[in-house]
Formats: sequence, C-alpha cells, structure tokens
Amino acid sequence: MQRRRFLTQAAAATGAGLAAVGLPAVAQNAPTVRWRMSTGWPKSLDALYGSADELCRRVGELTGGKFEIRAFPGGEIVPYAQNMEAVSNGTVECNHVLATAHIGTNTAIAFDTGLSFGMNARQHNAWIQFGGGMEKLREMYGQYGITNFVTGNVGVQMGGWYRKEIKSLKDLDGLKIRVGGIGGMVLQKLGAVPQQIPPSDIYPSLEKGTIDAAEWIGPYDDERLGLNKVAPFYYSPGWWEGSASITTMVNTEAWEKLPAEFKAAFEAAANEQALRMLAAYDAKNPPALRSLIAGGAQLKYFPKDVMEAAYKASQELWGELSEENPDFAKIYPEWKKFQEAEASWFRVAENALDNFTYSEVLKRS
Amino acid sequence: MQRRRFLTQAAAATGAGLAAVGLPAVAQNAPTVRWRMSTGWPKSLDALYGSADELCRRVGELTGGKFEIRAFPGGEIVPYAQNMEAVSNGTVECNHVLATAHIGTNTAIAFDTGLSFGMNARQHNAWIQFGGGMEKLREMYGQYGITNFVTGNVGVQMGGWYRKEIKSLKDLDGLKIRVGGIGGMVLQKLGAVPQQIPPSDIYPSLEKGTIDAAEWIGPYDDERLGLNKVAPFYYSPGWWEGSASITTMVNTEAWEKLPAEFKAAFEAAANEQALRMLAAYDAKNPPALRSLIAGGAQLKYFPKDVMEAAYKASQELWGELSEENPDFAKIYPEWKKFQEAEASWFRVAENALDNFTYSEVLKRS
Repeated sequence: MQRRRFLTQAAAATGAGLAAVGLPAVAQNAPTVRWRMSTGWPKSLDALYGSADELCRRVGELTGGKFEIRAFPGGEIVPYAQNMEAVSNGTVECNHVLATAHIGTNTAIAFDTGLSFGMNARQHNAWIQFGGGMEKLREMYGQYGITNFVTGNVGVQMGGWYRKEIKSLKDLDGLKIRVGGIGGMVLQKLGAVPQQIPPSDIYPSLEKGTIDAAEWIGPYDDERLGLNKVAPFYYSPGWWEGSASITTMVNTEAWEKLPAEFKAAFEAAANEQALRMLAAYDAKNPPALRSLIAGGAQLKYFPKDVMEAAYKASQELWGELSEENPDFAKIYPEWKKFQEAEASWFRVAENALDNFTYSEVLKRS
Repeated sequence: MQRRRFLTQAAAATGAGLAAVGLPAVAQNAPTVRWRMSTGWPKSLDALYGSADELCRRVGELTGGKFEIRAFPGGEIVPYAQNMEAVSNGTVECNHVLATAHIGTNTAIAFDTGLSFGMNARQHNAWIQFGGGMEKLREMYGQYGITNFVTGNVGVQMGGWYRKEIKSLKDLDGLKIRVGGIGGMVLQKLGAVPQQIPPSDIYPSLEKGTIDAAEWIGPYDDERLGLNKVAPFYYSPGWWEGSASITTMVNTEAWEKLPAEFKAAFEAAANEQALRMLAAYDAKNPPALRSLIAGGAQLKYFPKDVMEAAYKASQELWGELSEENPDFAKIYPEWKKFQEAEASWFRVAENALDNFTYSEVLKRS
C-alpha cells in the first residue's frame, strides 16, 4: 500500500486560487468569496451531485450570495482519483467525494467513509458529531492541509451486480470485481481481484466483460448507471461499509481565511446535507429496487460463508493496517470501542423494534 | 377526543409580539428580529434543551446576530400542554416540543412525532424531506396558523419503568402508566390507564405510587430524571413511536415577515438539529444504559403477546381515527404506503447488515 504524502505540494501551493480574497473579519463588509468544488460524480448521479449542488446553493442563501461555491461534475477539473490531491495543493478549494477512493494515500481515511461491517449511518454520525470521531479525522487530514466535513451518507449499499451467481465462498476466487476502497482489500483476501474504476466507466467495463461484477452504491444510483442491463444477479448487503459517508475536503488555508459567518454557513449546510442526502436515498431507493426487480434483476443474499469469511478477513485487516499505519492504529481502538457500545444499545431498542415492525408491516402489505 | 381549533385566537392575536418588527426584504438592512421559543423541557434534560439552544445560537451566527431566538425552559412561559396554543395565538413566535403532546387538538399531529410501530428516524426523515410528509403536515398545521419544522429526533425510545414485571398482556390491566400521545390511546385499548404528565412531574408521581409505570424517552434522559430510582424494571422497546421526532412550531405570521435570508438560516439550523440531536442521543444512550444496568436497573423486553396485541390495537386505532378525523384520513394512506416501501427496502440491506454485524460485534466484545 503506497502512502503518498501531499505535504510538499500543499506547501508549494500556499493560497493558490485564493490570492484575490484577503477577507476582513466581518462578513457584512467582506468581498465575495468564490470557491470551486470538484466532485466525484457525473451529473446523472443526481442524488450525489444534487446534494453537492444544494450545499453550494444553501451557502449562497445563508451569506446573501457573498460566499459562492460552484460544484463541477466528476472529471471536469481533475480525474476521480485526484480529488484529494486537488484540495491539498489548492487546485480547488473543496471537493465532494467518497473519501475511501483515497485510501491509497492513507488507509486511515477508511474511518471517514466507513469500514466493512462498521457502523451504520446513525452510529457513524454519532461518532463524528459527539464521539470524538471528527477530531480524530481532522488530525489525520491535517497533515495534507485538509479540513474535512461530513456532507452526506448513502446508508448501507447493495453488494453489487454479478454476471454469475455466488453460491459459496469459492465463487469469489479470481472474480474481477469493481469495488471501492476497503472492500477491495477484504475481497482480495477472499481471492477476488478488485478493480478501482470511476463510476462513469463501470457500465462499459461490465458490459465488455473486462470485469465479472461491479458494485457502485444502491438501487437508485445503480439503476441510473444501468448496471442491471449488464449483469442479472443483484446481491445484498454491501458489507464493505457499515454505511458510506460522503466527505467534503476543504483546503485548510482557504478555510482559515473565511470570516466566522461564512464558516458557520458552511458547517450548517454540511450538517444539513448529512441529513438530506441520506433522506433522499432512503426515499429514492425503495421504488428503484422495485423497478429493478420488475425489470428482471434477481435479488440475492451473500451466502453465510461469504459473510463470515468477509467479517473474519476484515478483523485481520484492521490488525495489519494498525501495524503498518500509525494513523490507523491511533483511530482504530476508540472507533472499535464506540462501535461495540453502539451495537449493544442499538440491539436493545432500535433493532428490536425494527425487526418486529418490518416483519408485521410486510405481513400486512 | 376533543378537537379544539385555535383559529379564533390566532386571528385575534394577529402579529402579537411582532408589532415592532416590520422587516424590509433585505436582511442586510433589517433591524434585529427577536423571537421567544417556549420549550417542553427543564434545562436538566440537556440533550433536548441543549439542541433547542444550539438551534437558536446557530440562527444567530448565520445572521450576524440579527435574528435572535431565545429558548425558555418548560413552564416558564406557558405550561407543557399549552405550547401549541402559545404559538398559534402568538404568545411566543415558536416552540420546541414533542408534538404528540397535542394530539388532543388534532390526532393527525401523531404523524409529526411518529405513530406506534411507525417509521424509524431515517424513514421518518425520508418521508418528511422527500416523501411529501412535510407538505401534508404543513397543510394540517396551517389551520392553526402554524408552520412546522422538524428540529430533532430521539430515535426509538425505551418502553419505560415499571414497579412490577409485565409477564403477559394481562399485567397491563388497570396499570396506571405515564405515557405521551398515541401510546396512551393504544395502551388504553389494552386495558391500561394512561396518564399525561409533564417530564418534571414524572419522578414524584412514580415515587409516590400515584402511577405504576412511566415512560419518558430513553437511557440518557431517563437517568437524568432519576426514574431508575423509583422503579426497577426497564422495558424495551418503546413501540409507541417508530421514532420520536421533535417539532418546532412557528407562528405563520411571524414566519412570513422574515426576510429570505433569515428563513434560510432557520431552515438550515432546523435540519442541522434533525441530524445533531439524533447523533447526540445515539452517542449518549449507550453509556447511560450501561450505567443504569450497573446501578441495578433490570432490562426486560415486552412479552410477545403484548407486542402483538399492541400492533393489532394500533392498526384498529388508525381505522377509527381515519373515520373520525378527516385530517388523519388524508395523511394515513400515503404514510402507510411509504412505510411499507421503506420496510421492504430497509429489510434488504440496512437491516440485513445490522443484524449480522450486531451479532458478530457483540460476540467479539
């Protein structure tokens, strides 16, 4: 695992793109600030791109139009894999990404997006907002000149689209699968051959048979990418992240030049999108899943031996990453303790009521 | 069920408390707007009161201090049961409440807080934000001169504190239990005697034995109220709301006088608290539950016959309320359809992964 550090570039690019700003302390009299936001998404992924756009619009509304952020579709400013470096070196002031695409830079970034069999969206937000998680992540990102924000979450993902059925663990052997981040590292331990492919290239790769399987997010986005048209088996659950949190990385020098009111506007708009994006997915996924199944997608669940082997491989991986990466080692013990506390409490009330209610409601419907 | 309409009072009190405002369209040049927020909470319930306070602070930060909202502890301006009327008639510009305390005014208010065996916090937020729920609620609240906002959620609650064990359905017979809103109506069908008691009076009532049982919220708040000291059995889950959403009702005339930037600030701050309050509860409940159990609380689950009878009684109740209240009848069919769609999707991915992960994580810990 290559651990590139962007420190040099970040230092060299001090204030790039910000030279004209020089803000006084009071927003009222501040000149307009203009930021660019590079995203990881084509506009067609409107739940993700739309949330980025809404964040920018809200910041504008909250500042009387004085703090303008403009979102750009994936690839327009920099390629998918360079969204982190672009913020670090000041090419753009901020981005809107699945940070896990950058674990090649630092495996501890996985704690930002989510670990396999990790915390669900609510638990992750609890850790970020009130469990010390944000402070830990800020410390880690700090070495790249980045200040991170949670700007969304997609919830638990689906396990992706497969050209052949996965009947047991051995069917993963040699399977070429498009999968992001930590999931790829775990699947590699199980014999699969993970591929990192940006969202817009997934469909053609699966269609041509360059890969055997591909996961992107869930019903709503997968349908928009058309993945159901090129592989029949749709597996659940996407265990590679307990939930996938969306990150906006901000260039720290740009951040620190903002007046307090603009900072408050950005923070409030970020937290608002942490709620709104998840709500959008939760509203859009149910009809999309129905439509996919009506169109012929075959819904399957990963066999028990796959789930168990993946869980075991994940635990091994946390041990290895803790040994090789001090940043990972610094976050993992507290993260793990938090997850255990969440699991014991969620099982008592939330999960007990969810299980009962789903069973009754689906009996009724 | 008495259905009081506040229309007359609201009309008579046009602009009360707002006479001095008269805002121009642009916030920049607007004079300071000052609002009062009556809450349902003593300051000691710091997760609820703290969130109300944070909302007010954020609105201030976002408007350069020009839109000041001040939160008041429960009972300081009006009694618990009058928080809705106080907004409707303009005594205060807004409140911060469990709206279900006001189902005596309109049973359709239950859709705002949550129904028994209803949607969990994420599903409720999906319905509110993207499922048409907010529009339906706004129409209902409109007749009281109120514009409603979701400003928090406490998640699934606990089932409360009991002086005696509940071994089967018949142990509910004649049980005097403090329970808010819809839960009381369902428990009454099961033979219990529900009591509406404001949070600050729950402890003395349970201590004196005026009541046999009491539910408030969950581990963190219940420990702060000291309920563990006056009843030994702590039941789960609090099935009377799939999740309990917190509402801020705003006097519509006051709302409409706000400049666009102040409205945006209020909306963003409300959505931020919808995320932050839930995250706070999710972070604070696990250690509180541990501490309660360490202190002698006996964790129990409602017997199967209680859960099943409560589910059945709830379905009957929705039929009855739909017949007697056109507002309930207008919202229920769409709400039900949305819940069914959510249940089918959540069971496929979220719930499947939650169940597996909790089981493995708790095995590990």
